[in-house]
Amino acid sequence: MHDMLDLQQRIANGLANIDIPERPQNLYAPIGYFMRLGGKRIRPLLTLMGADLFGAPDVERAVPAALAIELFHNFSLVHDDIMDKAPLRRGQQTVHEKWGADIAILAGDNLLIMAYGQLARSPAGKLPALLESFNTMATEVCEGQQLDMDYEGMDAIAIADYLHMIRLKTSVLLGTALKLGAILGDASEADAQYCYDFGVNVGLAFQLQDDILDVYGDPERFGKQRGGDILANKKTYLLLKALELADAGTEAELRGWLANDRDGDAKVDRVTEIYDLLGVRQATESAKRAYVSHAYDALASIARPDDSKRPLQTLAQSLMDRMQ
Amino acid sequence: MHDMLDLQQRIANGLANIDIPERPQNLYAPIGYFMRLGGKRIRPLLTLMGADLFGAPDVERAVPAALAIELFHNFSLVHDDIMDKAPLRRGQQTVHEKWGADIAILAGDNLLIMAYGQLARSPAGKLPALLESFNTMATEVCEGQQLDMDYEGMDAIAIADYLHMIRLKTSVLLGTALKLGAILGDASEADAQYCYDFGVNVGLAFQLQDDILDVYGDPERFGKQRGGDILANKKTYLLLKALELADAGTEAELRGWLANDRDGDAKVDRVTEIYDLLGVRQATESAKRAYVSHAYDALASIARPDDSKRPLQTLAQSLMDRMQ
Repeated sequence: MHDMLDLQQRIANGLANIDIPERPQNLYAPIGYFMRLGGKRIRPLLTLMGADLFGAPDVERAVPAALAIELFHNFSLVHDDIMDKAPLRRGQQTVHEKWGADIAILAGDNLLIMAYGQLARSPAGKLPALLESFNTMATEVCEGQQLDMDYEGMDAIAIADYLHMIRLKTSVLLGTALKLGAILGDASEADAQYCYDFGVNVGLAFQLQDDILDVYGDPERFGKQRGGDILANKKTYLLLKALELADAGTEAELRGWLANDRDGDAKVDRVTEIYDLLGVRQATESAKRAYVSHAYDALASIARPDDSKRPLQTLAQSLMDRMQ
Repeated sequence: MHDMLDLQQRIANGLANIDIPERPQNLYAPIGYFMRLGGKRIRPLLTLMGADLFGAPDVERAVPAALAIELFHNFSLVHDDIMDKAPLRRGQQTVHEKWGADIAILAGDNLLIMAYGQLARSPAGKLPALLESFNTMATEVCEGQQLDMDYEGMDAIAIADYLHMIRLKTSVLLGTALKLGAILGDASEADAQYCYDFGVNVGLAFQLQDDILDVYGDPERFGKQRGGDILANKKTYLLLKALELADAGTEAELRGWLANDRDGDAKVDRVTEIYDLLGVRQATESAKRAYVSHAYDALASIARPDDSKRPLQTLAQSLMDRMQ
């Protein structure tokens, strides 16, 4: 087994070695800029951890697939930022803000093609399985983004639909990241699937955690404005659960606040009070715990010694422990 | 060898069998709509012809790669139409006109992913070579589109730069379409490269032909407005050659017309006159003939009996003979 620092170094080296040509400058400068914005690189790390878990003799063989995952993630961020009209990403101007939407579309397209370019550098015998997993994930992420846009304009969304959307939009990428590593580590099909399930369930738990932290996290440690989702009328698990649990009067009040874009502080305070009255935080924590538990069940099912699973446990734990 | 109708039928069947899910409707309805707009499907035909040329025992094995080429072509059209703000495609509303840019971005993304999904259905042993060719082409098409956008805002472009741009934007796709088929037909590397060269040079000749027809074609048979490129101040081989050949006074007059967006008919008439005075049509025809000749040289170099090359010759001829 390799330690985390070693794996992270391999990703950093791999990213630094990606060939980004000089010209056409308007195509490649935005790509270089966005890739240098950084990020925690957790997804490619999962790929290397997946390969390492199965004792891949040469964990380096999983680096191209790990880079493919990271490039895909960046492709989806560049295009999502256009659709969400987001001005900032990681504290810096988004690509479409800096260069315009046309260049951002094309930069995103090329990031997606570069992702496949990396994936294609994997061992030839693994390509069919890697491509199948990757393509399924890629299509699902597009579907998730479309559902997210669809839901924005809708009043009522069932919690099951919300969970389906976040599974597609964010969680399958984590599951697939780990699964590609498992495939490259010569895992059995069953074990590769357990890896996928672990990643997807960690992803779902992480998203619910994110919903909780928006309201109940320490804004300083969490690095975001308290109640940002409430102010943006974002459909979160908390809001949908509140609408589900509320009596007619409370639901009317909640919908009143959703229609109110003026009294920001009062809105955050009162909606939080309503959440507290309805026990929404506990309900969300409980849903989150169920996903964590599914994740650990999947991890336990993998036919590898417990010792070798510890890094994945630690990573999942550290993702969950932000802030609490 | 299979006859053309048989190959075309295989493409039509393949396209009809592509699974386009019902939901999310806002993702898949635009994709289904755009694919149904049709087109001549020449690019996927080239892939099957490439496989057939080398006597692929089962030409059907090339159908997924042919569909990948067609899906890629449609991806690039959907995204280019956004960037070009084009209202119509094949006489129908473009996707961004009908559904908005956000949906068009995502529909294009998913078409690109679907292209890779098809390519991945090719025989496993061929995947590394297919992916390498396809990825190189895909990146070059993005580069070509970026250069095209860059050139729009520039006064002076060298003819060599224009030719480089159209090679990337339109010709490498034709070359790659044929090359993928050759790879699937177990062609030697040299023969696969000759196929590529044939396709690229036919593509370049076709683009120059297109530039000529815009001015000198019969608008009724050609199906476009006469002088549409002149009215849109589009940089074509004709215009760039005219600027190259013109004396100072004629160049000033040409640039005057480029700045004039009012007198449409007079503009087309006078710019055409200038082209005639400078012999620009003949110069373009001559450049086109050079590409056709390169294409036929490449075709002649392929180590297959002349008989088996006749369908490719006929296809190239029919592309060139439109209208003249």
